[in-house]
Amino acid sequence: MNEQILKNTNAKLLDEFNASINFDKNLYSQDIKGSLAHSQMLFLQGILSEDEKNKIHKGLEQIKKDIENGNFEFKLEDEDIHMAIERNLTKIIGETAKKLHTARSRNDQVATDFKLYIKEKNISLMAQIKKLLFTFEQICKNHTETLLPGMTHLQHAQPINLAFHLLSYVNMFQRDFKRFESSNQRNDTCPLGSAALAGTAHNIDRFKTASLLGFKTPCANAQDGVSDRDFALEILFNISTLSMHISRISEELILWSSYEFDFIKISDEYATTSSIMPQKKNPDVPELLRGKSGRIYGNLFALLTVMKSLPLAYNKDTQEDKEGVFDSVKNIELCLSILDEILKTMQISKENMLKACKKGHLCATDFADYLVQKQNFAFRDAYYLAKDAVAKADSLNKDISDLSFEELKDSSPKLKSLASLNKEVLTCLDLRNSMNSRDSYGGTSSKQSKIQIQELKEWLEQN
Amino acid sequence: MNEQILKNTNAKLLDEFNASINFDKNLYSQDIKGSLAHSQMLFLQGILSEDEKNKIHKGLEQIKKDIENGNFEFKLEDEDIHMAIERNLTKIIGETAKKLHTARSRNDQVATDFKLYIKEKNISLMAQIKKLLFTFEQICKNHTETLLPGMTHLQHAQPINLAFHLLSYVNMFQRDFKRFESSNQRNDTCPLGSAALAGTAHNIDRFKTASLLGFKTPCANAQDGVSDRDFALEILFNISTLSMHISRISEELILWSSYEFDFIKISDEYATTSSIMPQKKNPDVPELLRGKSGRIYGNLFALLTVMKSLPLAYNKDTQEDKEGVFDSVKNIELCLSILDEILKTMQISKENMLKACKKGHLCATDFADYLVQKQNFAFRDAYYLAKDAVAKADSLNKDISDLSFEELKDSSPKLKSLASLNKEVLTCLDLRNSMNSRDSYGGTSSKQSKIQIQELKEWLEQN
Amino acid sequence: MNEQILKNTNAKLLDEFNASINFDKNLYSQDIKGSLAHSQMLFLQGILSEDEKNKIHKGLEQIKKDIENGNFEFKLEDEDIHMAIERNLTKIIGETAKKLHTARSRNDQVATDFKLYIKEKNISLMAQIKKLLFTFEQICKNHTETLLPGMTHLQHAQPINLAFHLLSYVNMFQRDFKRFESSNQRNDTCPLGSAALAGTAHNIDRFKTASLLGFKTPCANAQDGVSDRDFALEILFNISTLSMHISRISEELILWSSYEFDFIKISDEYATTSSIMPQKKNPDVPELLRGKSGRIYGNLFALLTVMKSLPLAYNKDTQEDKEGVFDSVKNIELCLSILDEILKTMQISKENMLKACKKGHLCATDFADYLVQKQNFAFRDAYYLAKDAVAKADSLNKDISDLSFEELKDSSPKLKSLASLNKEVLTCLDLRNSMNSRDSYGGTSSKQSKIQIQELKEWLEQN
Amino acid sequence: MNEQILKNTNAKLLDEFNASINFDKNLYSQDIKGSLAHSQMLFLQGILSEDEKNKIHKGLEQIKKDIENGNFEFKLEDEDIHMAIERNLTKIIGETAKKLHTARSRNDQVATDFKLYIKEKNISLMAQIKKLLFTFEQICKNHTETLLPGMTHLQHAQPINLAFHLLSYVNMFQRDFKRFESSNQRNDTCPLGSAALAGTAHNIDRFKTASLLGFKTPCANAQDGVSDRDFALEILFNISTLSMHISRISEELILWSSYEFDFIKISDEYATTSSIMPQKKNPDVPELLRGKSGRIYGNLFALLTVMKSLPLAYNKDTQEDKEGVFDSVKNIELCLSILDEILKTMQISKENMLKACKKGHLCATDFADYLVQKQNFAFRDAYYLAKDAVAKADSLNKDISDLSFEELKDSSPKLKSLASLNKEVLTCLDLRNSMNSRDSYGGTSSKQSKIQIQELKEWLEQN
Repeated sequence: MNEQILKNTNAKLLDEFNASINFDKNLYSQDIKGSLAHSQMLFLQGILSEDEKNKIHKGLEQIKKDIENGNFEFKLEDEDIHMAIERNLTKIIGETAKKLHTARSRNDQVATDFKLYIKEKNISLMAQIKKLLFTFEQICKNHTETLLPGMTHLQHAQPINLAFHLLSYVNMFQRDFKRFESSNQRNDTCPLGSAALAGTAHNIDRFKTASLLGFKTPCANAQDGVSDRDFALEILFNISTLSMHISRISEELILWSSYEFDFIKISDEYATTSSIMPQKKNPDVPELLRGKSGRIYGNLFALLTVMKSLPLAYNKDTQEDKEGVFDSVKNIELCLSILDEILKTMQISKENMLKACKKGHLCATDFADYLVQKQNFAFRDAYYLAKDAVAKADSLNKDISDLSFEELKDSSPKLKSLASLNKEVLTCLDLRNSMNSRDSYGGTSSKQSKIQIQELKEWLEQN
Repeated sequence: MNEQILKNTNAKLLDEFNASINFDKNLYSQDIKGSLAHSQMLFLQGILSEDEKNKIHKGLEQIKKDIENGNFEFKLEDEDIHMAIERNLTKIIGETAKKLHTARSRNDQVATDFKLYIKEKNISLMAQIKKLLFTFEQICKNHTETLLPGMTHLQHAQPINLAFHLLSYVNMFQRDFKRFESSNQRNDTCPLGSAALAGTAHNIDRFKTASLLGFKTPCANAQDGVSDRDFALEILFNISTLSMHISRISEELILWSSYEFDFIKISDEYATTSSIMPQKKNPDVPELLRGKSGRIYGNLFALLTVMKSLPLAYNKDTQEDKEGVFDSVKNIELCLSILDEILKTMQISKENMLKACKKGHLCATDFADYLVQKQNFAFRDAYYLAKDAVAKADSLNKDISDLSFEELKDSSPKLKSLASLNKEVLTCLDLRNSMNSRDSYGGTSSKQSKIQIQELKEWLEQN
Repeated sequence: MNEQILKNTNAKLLDEFNASINFDKNLYSQDIKGSLAHSQMLFLQGILSEDEKNKIHKGLEQIKKDIENGNFEFKLEDEDIHMAIERNLTKIIGETAKKLHTARSRNDQVATDFKLYIKEKNISLMAQIKKLLFTFEQICKNHTETLLPGMTHLQHAQPINLAFHLLSYVNMFQRDFKRFESSNQRNDTCPLGSAALAGTAHNIDRFKTASLLGFKTPCANAQDGVSDRDFALEILFNISTLSMHISRISEELILWSSYEFDFIKISDEYATTSSIMPQKKNPDVPELLRGKSGRIYGNLFALLTVMKSLPLAYNKDTQEDKEGVFDSVKNIELCLSILDEILKTMQISKENMLKACKKGHLCATDFADYLVQKQNFAFRDAYYLAKDAVAKADSLNKDISDLSFEELKDSSPKLKSLASLNKEVLTCLDLRNSMNSRDSYGGTSSKQSKIQIQELKEWLEQN
Repeated sequence: MNEQILKNTNAKLLDEFNASINFDKNLYSQDIKGSLAHSQMLFLQGILSEDEKNKIHKGLEQIKKDIENGNFEFKLEDEDIHMAIERNLTKIIGETAKKLHTARSRNDQVATDFKLYIKEKNISLMAQIKKLLFTFEQICKNHTETLLPGMTHLQHAQPINLAFHLLSYVNMFQRDFKRFESSNQRNDTCPLGSAALAGTAHNIDRFKTASLLGFKTPCANAQDGVSDRDFALEILFNISTLSMHISRISEELILWSSYEFDFIKISDEYATTSSIMPQKKNPDVPELLRGKSGRIYGNLFALLTVMKSLPLAYNKDTQEDKEGVFDSVKNIELCLSILDEILKTMQISKENMLKACKKGHLCATDFADYLVQKQNFAFRDAYYLAKDAVAKADSLNKDISDLSFEELKDSSPKLKSLASLNKEVLTCLDLRNSMNSRDSYGGTSSKQSKIQIQELKEWLEQN
């Protein structure tokens, strides 16, 4: 290769490495929004004439339309979206375009664009979570009486109802909602006007631009304004936690659609077939939902790494902040939509859930509780009597709920000699009774589950 | 080895693996607090007699004293802090002790203990951050006039003052404060009474225990109550972000105490000597502050990994939640204390900071701004004229601030022929003028820096 | 507090923060080993007299005994293990002790100690993996005929045998073994003699110390010698991958011991009971094995974060390298021992595994393959005919393996009219035939499984 | 929306979520290569006729050409690259295409494609590292005499030469090279023929396909063959470590091009200007090199998370393995090329490096060493005498290398009274002497540096 070709090759390579336009073009609408506000403020402060401002506005709106109609060419040489728009503006309106850059820098411009983007996404993710919670409400309403084995350690523990089970996820997603909300409030400050790092000598009005862009206030320190990426870390963390919750429900959907559990059937749309095994129906989509947590965690860790030990103020490393956020946002948006659809379309087998409740002596604790409450045993003692009853049932190859009164009494000498024990005890071994007996606030009784659904309904109305 | 010995060896190994007492003993005071509230509620609900309740309370207080006086033996066989306390309570007060476990399980007990711990730590970390911010205020007050080269890309950019620079960190730490505060409010719900996973049949009053323990409400779903660890993830993330900020200021302290920068001297207490090089004074402590971000990030990712795809409700994996939190909390407490001391005791060399401002043509932007504001150039054109002036200064081996009026005019044909340019232009090349000219809200002028300090002072009074 | 008390408080705090003795005391034996070799070399090079060397050796051996007998007091003021040993050596042998530090620095000393430790651990972990593989071999030998539903997507796919299934893990653990082995070979270079960063003016023989310490060569660049931590990252990654494999088998052990699967029973020693539910037996130990991946991944990311963008040569941040490695090593050692015991002691239910094979039309692919091989269909066409047969079986509420020849023919018009199809086709629907038919290299047939076991046996003999 | 539109919208959304074609189309050449080998083997085994095989080969080669000429349309409905190619093959050659899928599944197909890709990348990354090491060699050759202050804790420590400094990186990158090499050898096994999970009943020859594809052997267990992703974790880890090394040299390039250090000038091509500050030249490219470590670490963590606790055999989560690897590979390729260019084109200021050596009493250790070697002091005592000399120099505002013999003697009573001390001592305070005195193996003397360069040269010839 001769030197010139080599130089060009290197230059292209470098552009590919250095330029952010391939991903920050996503921020075109925020960039234009920012420029509209900035030029409006410059006009109000007498820095731009009305005519200049109008020209700039018209030009920017033209560019927006061009981009949205696919008539705008993004060139790698433009390096970033700011330059791409600025150069095009110059082409359209001439020299006036250059005045737009008065009293700002790419440092505060990109921080503002990115913050606007994240604000929008915090809000739209909240809306998506709400939609998902509405779906939960619809399903829960129909399942406050649907018995299901409540599990700890993936072992049958106590009978619960399906609504109660799903309401656990409702609580998780409500916390997710609140995290996006609180992050949005905490970061509601506008970097525009921070300029390169230290503010500007121009007589600008940062409160005006902040308010035009929908921010509560301008951020209080210019250098922090251009170097802060806490808001990006927060959305990455909030998406990570949300994704973790989704991985948990996905794990359950996968388990529940196995032959062994057989509690639900994923709709055909969200399950796929095997290219080699004709009988297979695979819960591909929940598996992918579960697996997405990986990249989403990775994106959080990536930005934490980038920010570690960066000196003030702006460093180019920070350019690495955007792709991870875009990726996490896009993936979680898909995850939320698709989880919503899976839940809506899955078939729930009440019969199989009920059948499963008959395994594992789910009412053993109830029996212990009965001995405490009605027969005045200390819990630890009652616990061991219940253990004996379980052993008895196992020896008879029965579930504890199927023991006769005599069999129960026979399970231990202490019970046998307990005069006050009568057949009433059997009611505590009934699965539905057992579920409904856990009637403490937040408990699994149908009554408490209905209260929780009512609270959800009110929450959905208020948020 | 004969079989029995082998069995014992395995049993010990297993205890070591399985038992959490070596670390969850940290939660003894929260565990006792929880038991006091639980038994008080059981008494108010008529489940315990007054006498039983009193015995339990007396026993628990005895145990607390024993632990704090070192008279309590933690045994690996006890497995966890709950069992250790319960067994000792039985030793002290006999059979009544067993009644304490009525209507609760280790699942809700440990969740409550851990949440109480994190609540306390959220609050104490907020207090530590406040203390640090007070130190910043004290230093900033004295340095609103101290010139410093503001940097981007570690290159001299514009003259700023030291107070303005430090106020960037003030903004970061204030956001950290708010994150702990908001997490604390969001997670102000009490798991106690969730029992194993589904609530209890006992007639308990969860609002009462919640309130006795200082929580706003009981958590709304029992199964979520025992499986939720969002509050732990939040403190781990909040500490990570805080630690990232500390790594940034540490990086600057390290740079600033190098021979090349020589802006500060770390106090001898916080710098160490070399075992081989007699002349060395190493900023070990800021380096360690910087390095701590590693383990703190690691602890966050550890728990995110643990929680990924766990089915409901409680799983033993969750036992892995505590050590990382304890480690992050302990390390960040040390970091905050020590950073506070380093800042208080370091020596600041105003002279060297000022000397550094004379390198790098810090006022080049001011000259461009002058041309925009006073000579009506478009910014992009002014920018290129300033570039020419910089080139001229370089050719004369001077800083731009040292150019004479003639030299400045000579820097480009356009300037030379610019009749309206007079000596007044030189004022914009003065470093202090330059710093003070950036007087936009949040800017670096001494006036704006003082406003920011005043805002900090008020914030400290209100929070 | 008066000033002096405050100062003391700060000093203590700082010691706690700065000192590494609390964890690097783990390296005492490596540190003493290193000093023995260093002083021996100094003697051989004429830098120490024989008498001096002997004194030093005797003193060091005394210290080793003291530490191992608990007669050595580690003080926080000593800061690190090197200083602790050096000061004690001075106490025992007087001034001569000081000569030991000739031609070395704490930088190369700690790098050498740490590398020796990791070398030892690479080797002992290889031995533990071998022990585990031996257990696998013992189990596999008995289960080449044990039918099990092979799964993809947690859905029944094809009949396999249990040995074949476990041999998948054998392959994983063999790769883990090789990773530790290769890392050990790659990092077999000794930093001692690198001194602070640049080597030494003393006439030392680094090849001699390297060889005395069991390293292949001294490391080739002194500055790299003191700043390299690749060997620590490698063990952290290798443990992470190993732990990931353990999390996978643990997940399966948990699933398999659920009521729904019921393929195995974890021995009582490795499963625990519930404090509230008398019937529960929880697979706590596999859950903890699964959860350990969190902290182990965290430790890897901690050190990657610490090392990011550290300038050369030694920085105090690197002190953060040890605790994570110690923690990962200790935990994986426990995990390996305990997994080994769980596997040895678990009860395998061949009956339940076989019963499970009768669900999910495991032989559907076999039928398709039969059509390809014996009836000359293209695979894609055969696939759809098998799908029809599955549908037919479903409609009859049977497994495909229970279809009669007539039922099978009836499943599609194409089959019905296929003159060449005779009853021989039913053999391909037999589960054991199906398993044994997959006789390609690495396949699941009993024959291939036995070959794999034989290969494992040979590997165990050779490694 | 009416139902049909809704259904279509969902279907599109799902395709977007589920389909991998957008990224796995990168694997087209590996997929075709795999199919060529598979069909060749099927022919050799008598499963395909020669005519069938020839048709398939011709079709596949056509498709390859089409893809490379841009005449191939990738459709989202095809879901993945395997299906895209298969459908097109059917279009071109008709029914015969379907026979290609005999005895394989998408599970082993994708594992093979991915493994082929990673093999190629391991090898090409090794070549790129070699190229970079060649550049280091070229630079080092010219700088064995270039004095530079060697640093620990970013404090001047001892005089070294620039070649020695850069040779530290040579050692790092050589280890990186070896890691890719060893990973490639360890994972040199072919999954093709594992079929869905359990092998196949067809009479295939896996050794043949393995060898046609350039693998050493087929992998030994089919189920492991389709579920193993260790090879992907390894390349992600190896790239992470490589990237960490790059972040370290980038940090130094950034420091060295600051006004404070001023040791090098990054070529204009690799440094950019500010949009607001006309004087700025920013080391953007090294900053970006430093920041890339974030995403690269993130990709490693992502896959570790995905793999955690996945049951056997194939799960759809694993589809998340590719994008991260593609991203890490692409970025590290760019990083290596660009670092290479930066090093080749940067200007090194020997003068400024030398000037820096005159600060910080770099020869203090030499003086201590002199006292040990020539005056028979114990090192610890010599150390304190050197400390006194440094204090003396500081009091005179001189570097220790500028002290006169009298000034030196005056620095402590012990020296003053040391009759054997004569002017010869001053030679040990000469910077170049000092550098050259560290002549131990791996040390910084010009001689040792030349030896290391010679070793590098030989290594480059052999590898």
